[in-house]
Amino acid sequence: MQSELDFTVPSLGERRIPSPIALSTTQGDRIANYVSDMEFIRYGNEAREGPQNPLERRDLLEKAGPRERIYFGPSHVHAGIVTCGGLCPGLNDVIRAITRCLWQRYGVRRITGIRYGYKGFLPEYDIPVRPLDPDQVDDIHKMGGTMLGSSRGGGERTTDIVDAIERLNMNMLFTIGGDGTQKGALAIAEEIERRNLKVAVVGVPKTIDNDLLFVDRSFGFETAVARAAEAVTGAHAEAHSSMNGIGLVKLMGRDSGFIAVHTVLAAHEANFVLIPEVPFDLEGPKGLLARLEERLERRKHAVVVVAEGAGQEHLATVAGTDASGNRKLGDIGVFLRDRIQEHFAARGKEINLKYIDPSYLIRSASASPTDSVYCERLGNNAAHAAMAGKTKCLIGMVNGEFVHIPIAVAVRSRRRVDPEGSLWRDAVDATQQPLSMRNEG
Amino acid sequence: MQSELDFTVPSLGERRIPSPIALSTTQGDRIANYVSDMEFIRYGNEAREGPQNPLERRDLLEKAGPRERIYFGPSHVHAGIVTCGGLCPGLNDVIRAITRCLWQRYGVRRITGIRYGYKGFLPEYDIPVRPLDPDQVDDIHKMGGTMLGSSRGGGERTTDIVDAIERLNMNMLFTIGGDGTQKGALAIAEEIERRNLKVAVVGVPKTIDNDLLFVDRSFGFETAVARAAEAVTGAHAEAHSSMNGIGLVKLMGRDSGFIAVHTVLAAHEANFVLIPEVPFDLEGPKGLLARLEERLERRKHAVVVVAEGAGQEHLATVAGTDASGNRKLGDIGVFLRDRIQEHFAARGKEINLKYIDPSYLIRSASASPTDSVYCERLGNNAAHAAMAGKTKCLIGMVNGEFVHIPIAVAVRSRRRVDPEGSLWRDAVDATQQPLSMRNEG
Amino acid sequence: MQSELDFTVPSLGERRIPSPIALSTTQGDRIANYVSDMEFIRYGNEAREGPQNPLERRDLLEKAGPRERIYFGPSHVHAGIVTCGGLCPGLNDVIRAITRCLWQRYGVRRITGIRYGYKGFLPEYDIPVRPLDPDQVDDIHKMGGTMLGSSRGGGERTTDIVDAIERLNMNMLFTIGGDGTQKGALAIAEEIERRNLKVAVVGVPKTIDNDLLFVDRSFGFETAVARAAEAVTGAHAEAHSSMNGIGLVKLMGRDSGFIAVHTVLAAHEANFVLIPEVPFDLEGPKGLLARLEERLERRKHAVVVVAEGAGQEHLATVAGTDASGNRKLGDIGVFLRDRIQEHFAARGKEINLKYIDPSYLIRSASASPTDSVYCERLGNNAAHAAMAGKTKCLIGMVNGEFVHIPIAVAVRSRRRVDPEGSLWRDAVDATQQPLSMRNEG
Amino acid sequence: MQSELDFTVPSLGERRIPSPIALSTTQGDRIANYVSDMEFIRYGNEAREGPQNPLERRDLLEKAGPRERIYFGPSHVHAGIVTCGGLCPGLNDVIRAITRCLWQRYGVRRITGIRYGYKGFLPEYDIPVRPLDPDQVDDIHKMGGTMLGSSRGGGERTTDIVDAIERLNMNMLFTIGGDGTQKGALAIAEEIERRNLKVAVVGVPKTIDNDLLFVDRSFGFETAVARAAEAVTGAHAEAHSSMNGIGLVKLMGRDSGFIAVHTVLAAHEANFVLIPEVPFDLEGPKGLLARLEERLERRKHAVVVVAEGAGQEHLATVAGTDASGNRKLGDIGVFLRDRIQEHFAARGKEINLKYIDPSYLIRSASASPTDSVYCERLGNNAAHAAMAGKTKCLIGMVNGEFVHIPIAVAVRSRRRVDPEGSLWRDAVDATQQPLSMRNEG
Repeated sequence: MQSELDFTVPSLGERRIPSPIALSTTQGDRIANYVSDMEFIRYGNEAREGPQNPLERRDLLEKAGPRERIYFGPSHVHAGIVTCGGLCPGLNDVIRAITRCLWQRYGVRRITGIRYGYKGFLPEYDIPVRPLDPDQVDDIHKMGGTMLGSSRGGGERTTDIVDAIERLNMNMLFTIGGDGTQKGALAIAEEIERRNLKVAVVGVPKTIDNDLLFVDRSFGFETAVARAAEAVTGAHAEAHSSMNGIGLVKLMGRDSGFIAVHTVLAAHEANFVLIPEVPFDLEGPKGLLARLEERLERRKHAVVVVAEGAGQEHLATVAGTDASGNRKLGDIGVFLRDRIQEHFAARGKEINLKYIDPSYLIRSASASPTDSVYCERLGNNAAHAAMAGKTKCLIGMVNGEFVHIPIAVAVRSRRRVDPEGSLWRDAVDATQQPLSMRNEG
Repeated sequence: MQSELDFTVPSLGERRIPSPIALSTTQGDRIANYVSDMEFIRYGNEAREGPQNPLERRDLLEKAGPRERIYFGPSHVHAGIVTCGGLCPGLNDVIRAITRCLWQRYGVRRITGIRYGYKGFLPEYDIPVRPLDPDQVDDIHKMGGTMLGSSRGGGERTTDIVDAIERLNMNMLFTIGGDGTQKGALAIAEEIERRNLKVAVVGVPKTIDNDLLFVDRSFGFETAVARAAEAVTGAHAEAHSSMNGIGLVKLMGRDSGFIAVHTVLAAHEANFVLIPEVPFDLEGPKGLLARLEERLERRKHAVVVVAEGAGQEHLATVAGTDASGNRKLGDIGVFLRDRIQEHFAARGKEINLKYIDPSYLIRSASASPTDSVYCERLGNNAAHAAMAGKTKCLIGMVNGEFVHIPIAVAVRSRRRVDPEGSLWRDAVDATQQPLSMRNEG
Repeated sequence: MQSELDFTVPSLGERRIPSPIALSTTQGDRIANYVSDMEFIRYGNEAREGPQNPLERRDLLEKAGPRERIYFGPSHVHAGIVTCGGLCPGLNDVIRAITRCLWQRYGVRRITGIRYGYKGFLPEYDIPVRPLDPDQVDDIHKMGGTMLGSSRGGGERTTDIVDAIERLNMNMLFTIGGDGTQKGALAIAEEIERRNLKVAVVGVPKTIDNDLLFVDRSFGFETAVARAAEAVTGAHAEAHSSMNGIGLVKLMGRDSGFIAVHTVLAAHEANFVLIPEVPFDLEGPKGLLARLEERLERRKHAVVVVAEGAGQEHLATVAGTDASGNRKLGDIGVFLRDRIQEHFAARGKEINLKYIDPSYLIRSASASPTDSVYCERLGNNAAHAAMAGKTKCLIGMVNGEFVHIPIAVAVRSRRRVDPEGSLWRDAVDATQQPLSMRNEG
Repeated sequence: MQSELDFTVPSLGERRIPSPIALSTTQGDRIANYVSDMEFIRYGNEAREGPQNPLERRDLLEKAGPRERIYFGPSHVHAGIVTCGGLCPGLNDVIRAITRCLWQRYGVRRITGIRYGYKGFLPEYDIPVRPLDPDQVDDIHKMGGTMLGSSRGGGERTTDIVDAIERLNMNMLFTIGGDGTQKGALAIAEEIERRNLKVAVVGVPKTIDNDLLFVDRSFGFETAVARAAEAVTGAHAEAHSSMNGIGLVKLMGRDSGFIAVHTVLAAHEANFVLIPEVPFDLEGPKGLLARLEERLERRKHAVVVVAEGAGQEHLATVAGTDASGNRKLGDIGVFLRDRIQEHFAARGKEINLKYIDPSYLIRSASASPTDSVYCERLGNNAAHAAMAGKTKCLIGMVNGEFVHIPIAVAVRSRRRVDPEGSLWRDAVDATQQPLSMRNEG
């Protein structure tokens, strides 16, 4: 699969300036080292015995980290930071880390927060920017959301945005956001090139759904799972305490079921998990409704976890896309709630369904300690990348190491739960639901 | 006000049996004492200088606690425990405490859990009871909900319930539930009297809304406030991170705003709190919508907390009552959500409203440490009361002391937030909302 | 007992200035009211039937809250806030509330934080003060400790402190601290009187031990119990997971066992609780060591909770007092740890004792939601009291209402767990330890 | 480095029995698949361009998971589970997962818990075993510690242990424990071979320190970091609230600083972190004491985090090993506490040092959601491995995939923080401590 990929990271030019960060250039002196452009991480771990093809540059991800020589003179840097799209735990941690690394390690003194996503660049909104320094960001990681504000869309306004970048005299832009945001960042970087500007565009990919290709996990995901597991515990208490109690929890996951699957593994209390990757029937002897009925017969209560993108085939088509360019989804949670109630009402069976949609409470949480560590390291590496003149790239962790990933490669598609893999298998074990809830096949 | 009340607690008869709990009868020996029926707590603290009316029995609440002589011989006791109505943090703690106190302190060996509320007594449901002992209940306080299950209604089926009590040969019934439950308990106790049975009926009042008369606070309330405050923090992160972001949080509180008011004091992040006790206008220069608009102009975001019983005057009347006998309410949360969106849409002002209804996640929580302590002590005192032959009474804490309150007195009306008192005043200070949001008066 | 007390609150003089807080003066208009000096709360709830003595002023506690007329013109106020002694959850909440109430409700613009306790007033330390405003304090409640810093002692330097108050031209001092701090505050207020100055001295009593007379509970106490209960849960996991495992947890409580007792009730996992109010023997058939041995025989593990002031009779006398004027205590935790190990070693019995002293982790926590509400209301009422010219008084909650308590009365002695009362009785029930662990009596 | 390793996993024999778990054997049908022995994960991600050596079996880790054919007939299985060594969050989760997977997926009905570590096998302790089934383990993941009990040592008693295994007629042993435990497990498996028995020995490696070779992270580590970060936050509140306040926190980490390093990254509040891998001087211009003094001059407070194995060169040698075979360490926490106090006392500088050792509170915690997911999957895979007849192997996660690792390879040495790598570099950034605190070099 990687054969079509090109992991080469674009660069603004030659690095002539010695880094102000004093690190070691000697191996073995027990002092932290610079990272060179010749250090790589191999993507892909599945392997077989026998002769191997020669590794090419395109198989290798460039290691992130501070370079011995950098592209920008710190006193000439004006860095911008923008957060886009929906909330995700850890946004403030990333802002904090970029700001602190630039300021304290490199001595950069002009760092500017763009307010409310890409819209903060657009003339018609006329939103003042917000200067950032270590004092401004010192405690922001304790709060959820983003201190800079966010919004959806706007990234398609490439010309206006680059006009604003020129007007602000920025030479570094950090884009923290999802797929749409990073596609926008790529277009911005291309417009920048067309104008022969030297502006580094470095992204920190944000997807609470954990569906980023290549990357081990996305920031905020673990916090989201911890919060979601609490909601499932609540749903279980509700279901367990009622006659024929059903707790139905809708979780995030437009295209992938990672949050739902990890949550049922963490909560130990769900009996069904429904994800976009695994289609299911509602009706028929093997369908969800029959399975649910069996469960109620046997145990008098049930907990169902459904990812928002699951079962879209059962919903009337909803046309169009939202401001972030995401396909609009029908509301599977409300649909299932109604459908389950109809089903049992038609059978004269009294049930007690509690429907819980904790999405806002999950995404607005502040980062868990593990996520906080991860965000800090992502932000540091983003700062290092931009100072070194890397551009059109994202920072990610691959096989435990931080790397640069070209935006062009990263946004090509999304990661999904493999319905034939071990994660889904363990989720099925945890819920004890049938391997398949389809009547055929 | 108390002059009409009668705090005298009914009793099944003379207490002839020495308590198996070895306590001290001596003051001053530093060993825990029995409580006598002559120990009282005065209700009401507001006072004035000068001569006082003689205190009458009816001004005094009987202290709860173990008596030196008890009514029931432990080996003849068969105790039933039932939990009714909606979930509330601490239900399992109360079940646990009653069970453990009866078993370990008194040596009672027949303790039976009735499943799914009063319906567990009704013949048509045919639900097996659940025997209880200390092992069964040892860890249940770690879980939300009620291990016995609950349901609404059924308490009006007095004859059937007392039939079941006779059939089970029970002589002690603990009813854990709200107003409707305790009214049912009173009717059950009266039917028991009519049949000349000797069955103690002792209630532990449950109202997550904290609106019980006389009582300092109801169990589960502090846990609820802590959870609700988290939801407000989430709403604040959402609102703060959007342009003209509005976080709207609906909390419990059918007839009283205690949860809403305590939550805004705890969360420090709400800008408006709306409660049933304080009417407000929507339209007009002093109405909520104008005030919200001003706030957005000034600060670009706002958080609104609304108790479910607030602003019912703005809703089309919803007829009828639910199975617990509660008046049905219109959904003020959804109404406000829509009304606010219409208001700003009509003005061509883009807002970003996030509506959060965390009720199920709040009420299904396990009890906080403080609530757990309180529930344990409520349960112990309920066991002591029933063993002493007290009946038709509730256990409550008044001015820091546990007392017996006749059910007949306790269910007469509900406590409400005093709009002219210090609690509401402090909430207005915390939100900085106007003292009144009415255009007239 | 109250007969010797005088609850009359000193005042700086006549109140001529209309309050800038617009509240209602009308009962029944559903708008928050001012509080008058003629509103009282009765202390003491135990009561008997029959004729009552006339209530005198000295039986009555003055209600706290905003007065219609105040003593100080807000534009002339310079308020100082000082925090003294050991940490306690909620200190920052109190600072925040005083600052916000003075600034936002009264329009006071000079509010000054004194750093590091009374030492911040002393010339030899030469510590700059810290100006306070709502922005400075907006988020401090999320952090433990005190933003102003604290220290022990210094309060006996009355002359120097009043010199500093004069030099700073302060006319209002808020002292947040324990017994020693408030005794110091009283001496300061007396020196102020001697100099004919008009400076209001209002205290917010701090004692994590919850041992303040009159007051329902002290701020920070519930947070402390919640944290302490976690430590006991940890000790239980350790003890339960080892052969003859013993978890020994030392908690705060110099003179009273409130934290220890509430913690064992909240944690449900302790088998012994030792408090200063209830002496116990170590040796002999009824002593702790024999009881512990029995418990290990029977259950293979045990958890012991000991308040730091318990069992001092077993320790070699430690002379002197610390900087706060507290009697120095021997370390009962370390003593018991060693004594238990010796005991079982002498019997050739292998045990596995884990000793846990979580004190710093408890007292440094940020306030729980309930404590945060309480601190906010304490701080508001302190601001109201000082603006009204009240002095030499503390703010407390008595029977659920906020009141003014003269410092002179409040510091006379301390509240203690009544070994013959219901709290201790319930703790004994929870642990199932013997009512007495003394060989005689 | 791998060139010397042999990742081949021993097996008890041919697998002839069809698995009772119905999984798919078809790729592409969206139903979870069996795993074959020909699926591998490559260890090691660092790579360079150009021609590669042929991959040999020894470079490849075998993927874990259910096999289509298994070695043991479920009705003949008698499985034993033993937990050894110090506590670690997640032990109960692993026990739960193994039990449930064997029982529910494979239909095994004889599962036996060995109590208190390897000692539970030894005749002189005469400890009854504990039968396990899904009901027994249903809720144990909510509790810290291990439901089976644990102890150190005993694993060297190979003959006695295998005698007991024979006596119990066990053919499957799961060993959950650290290095010493797994070395013991290997010796047991070798003795088993010598006796020509067919007993699968499968380990789940436990090291709260996260210092296991090959493996991405060890279970319990993230929970430990979250708890440790709370302790650092407490230490910061203490330090910040005192004049020249120093918070000194000792964390786990005998040979590696992973917990300490992740904790300072998560807590954002430490100023120094000391780990075994990075030596430091105490005295001299670049030593810790001088650096600490500078920090106090500048900021008036400091937080120091020290791993228990750090700075051993400064301590008088402590001879010997503990029962788990670990080298005994001097107590660097107490040493630093005293040394720092002496240092400032000698300079007449008043400091306020609070020493916090939260180790027991950390290791006794229940698993965080992320750790709980991980433990469940480790346990499932351990059950699959044993059913397939794998032996002398551990279950681990490598590059995100679960694999079998031969014990012989895994226990050869330990992972350590690379002082020249990015983790340590980011920790130095977070604390802003000097890259080196050595006077020379």
